[in-house]
Amino acid sequence: MYNFGIDIGGTTIKIGFFKEYTLIDSYEIKTKKTLFNDLKKSLKEYLEKNNISINNLYGIGFGIPGNVINNYIYKMPNIGIDNINLEDEFKDFNVIIKSCNDATVAALAEANYSNYKNIVMLTLGTGVGGGIVINSKVIDGCNGAGGEVGHIKTDFIHNYECSCGLNGCLETVSSSTGIVRLAKEYRDLYKDSLIKNFNVKEIIDCAKMNDKLGEMVVDEAAKNIAIALANIGVTVDPDCYIIGGGISKAGNYLIDKISYYYKKYAHYAIKNTKIILAKLSNNAGMIGACYLLK
Amino acid sequence: MYNFGIDIGGTTIKIGFFKEYTLIDSYEIKTKKTLFNDLKKSLKEYLEKNNISINNLYGIGFGIPGNVINNYIYKMPNIGIDNINLEDEFKDFNVIIKSCNDATVAALAEANYSNYKNIVMLTLGTGVGGGIVINSKVIDGCNGAGGEVGHIKTDFIHNYECSCGLNGCLETVSSSTGIVRLAKEYRDLYKDSLIKNFNVKEIIDCAKMNDKLGEMVVDEAAKNIAIALANIGVTVDPDCYIIGGGISKAGNYLIDKISYYYKKYAHYAIKNTKIILAKLSNNAGMIGACYLLK
Repeated sequence: MYNFGIDIGGTTIKIGFFKEYTLIDSYEIKTKKTLFNDLKKSLKEYLEKNNISINNLYGIGFGIPGNVINNYIYKMPNIGIDNINLEDEFKDFNVIIKSCNDATVAALAEANYSNYKNIVMLTLGTGVGGGIVINSKVIDGCNGAGGEVGHIKTDFIHNYECSCGLNGCLETVSSSTGIVRLAKEYRDLYKDSLIKNFNVKEIIDCAKMNDKLGEMVVDEAAKNIAIALANIGVTVDPDCYIIGGGISKAGNYLIDKISYYYKKYAHYAIKNTKIILAKLSNNAGMIGACYLLK
Repeated sequence: MYNFGIDIGGTTIKIGFFKEYTLIDSYEIKTKKTLFNDLKKSLKEYLEKNNISINNLYGIGFGIPGNVINNYIYKMPNIGIDNINLEDEFKDFNVIIKSCNDATVAALAEANYSNYKNIVMLTLGTGVGGGIVINSKVIDGCNGAGGEVGHIKTDFIHNYECSCGLNGCLETVSSSTGIVRLAKEYRDLYKDSLIKNFNVKEIIDCAKMNDKLGEMVVDEAAKNIAIALANIGVTVDPDCYIIGGGISKAGNYLIDKISYYYKKYAHYAIKNTKIILAKLSNNAGMIGACYLLK
């Protein structure tokens, strides 16, 4: 039997094709307003092209960038599509449908891959997602908001409005959009900065070369991540924190900055909890989405 | 068989005597630096006085105001006694010893009593403790810091130093010591306030009578509690929040204030999560401590 594990992102949809729970192929399509129609068409074409009967498909697992309960998507704020019943949308596939928050499925994949039973994962991308696995089980919460730690209030300085409607959420300063906004906000203070294009990769690359604006912005992002982890630490006290998502490509440079501030802001009982990079990179969402079908 | 369920607090130790897991008697002793010797003596005297053989005692459960892992108490910051091995201390009783953070055992008692499987409990006393029960199981954490939500950073305005060494913890403004400190800090702004003795009961009573200083301080405490709950909500997303501890005697007046700010600061997905008063009052700690022996 085969499965699809699908990771819906703000800009692309990652589609993994699995023999049982082993990833054997993957591809991407763009995220558009027509995403569920695009997706249905794409999956059918994929099966057809590879001569696989839809009868050999067991299930489709989804990682959703928003809150979802019992396969009903209430809101995807970064995409702008709300109130979707996934079982209705994919009913002509006649397969098992499972879904969870995108960052939660990534956490499930990382927890399965690592030797840790209790992890908190942060996914730093267009937004900041999170996933919590305690005793090897996902904490998805009574309203599907378990692990939505991108909306922990950490920033009382800028207090920017978040896509969720609140102010000062971690996501407003530590996501890629947050980092770019911070750099633009402080550009006039650092006239000799090498940052010209104001995208997150350039900002982090410049920070690594000791560009003052870049350093200041990455420090601010790392500090807010550390405050959030310190808050999460005195709530669920995991074995380790795992940092994933596009921004985590900054590697140990980012981990070291987060760890520095974490030591400063964390309660004494949890100061030594490890902060590590995600291992599964871009595949975690697809793999975790497929694991939901287990 | 009988059990003791013992709730160690900053000022008193509550001792519950249980037939199996049913509370049949309780009494209090003062918390002193000699607390474990006082306790051993007191328990032995209690058994003797009631003609109960120590052989009929099955276990002693403890709620500890600090972090404890595997019956080893690392720190009790509000009492100033550290590094205690409970099994060594009580070895001449030759019974089962179990222990957990005091607020966590209270949460376990409340969760058992209520119909909720997923609760977060805040215990507002000398400090601010917390306990988290998810799927009817305590989340005590890898370092015994699960549910230590009194150390979530919520106050970026006063940024008072906490007993834990950090600054701006919820406990610094929303515990009884925090509320008293806030009232003293703002007394000069409200010269016609009726508050004279500066204890937490007087402050809350005055607030209820629309005393401006009292109202301002209780509002600030409630706002910080709401920010903490909003943070916890996007982490574990429970069925409900339960407010207990001495300050919760303020009743629905306090709950209404917390709920008002919670609606303001909580993520849209969790805005309707209920905030309710603890039901078991002062007995929760003893009962939960005894439940640890189950």
